[in-house]
Amino acid sequence: MPKPSDPLCASIQTALDLLGRPWTGLVLAALQRGPSRFSELSALLPDMGDKVLSARLKELEAKRLLVRSVDPGPPVRVTYRLTPLGARFRGVTDALEGWGRQFLASERSLKRASSRRRGTG
Amino acid sequence: MPKPSDPLCASIQTALDLLGRPWTGLVLAALQRGPSRFSELSALLPDMGDKVLSARLKELEAKRLLVRSVDPGPPVRVTYRLTPLGARFRGVTDALEGWGRQFLASERSLKRASSRRRGTG
Repeated sequence: MPKPSDPLCASIQTALDLLGRPWTGLVLAALQRGPSRFSELSALLPDMGDKVLSARLKELEAKRLLVRSVDPGPPVRVTYRLTPLGARFRGVTDALEGWGRQFLASERSLKRASSRRRGTG
Repeated sequence: MPKPSDPLCASIQTALDLLGRPWTGLVLAALQRGPSRFSELSALLPDMGDKVLSARLKELEAKRLLVRSVDPGPPVRVTYRLTPLGARFRGVTDALEGWGRQFLASERSLKRASSRRRGTG
């Protein structure tokens, strides 16, 4: 394990800083499906308020992980899509999903084992 | 992109909830080197206070990602090591590291391009 000043550690910390913001990982995961409009993202993440979604989209745009394009219409259409750097975040999302699935499965099997013990005890 | 109630989304959120706690990802990355004593972890993560390290280790033990074993000595030796579930988190750490490296490289090349523009402008 490198010290925090080492490049490996700096890389992990950079990615963690981004993911530490609530909803950021899920907004990126939603955009991995393809370019989306604000209302589509909002519908996919119903528990996330529109104010927070708007803030996250601005942050991700500032970090150059997504681009916002405006079709003047009418009606005006604003679309968000991942940049190549944003699209490469998929590796992280996939790893998170795989590990999270194993974690939840392990929780479930522990719960089953403990209710079996209670049943026979 | 599934809705938050869907299993895929629940898995990602589970992993993100864990990573959202400051330092958790780096503590797991440090333990990927092998079983460690508290003082070794503390030395590897010098910017992290011992109080926070102690709290993170307790949380990770409660989630069954690591085990704490006590060799009564003398002197008493407490060692922390990853469980199989904790060890599988390596996939996430590797993905974070890979993406973080690409992100930092892209920041550097943008900075270089912008200072070149300033130099000729």
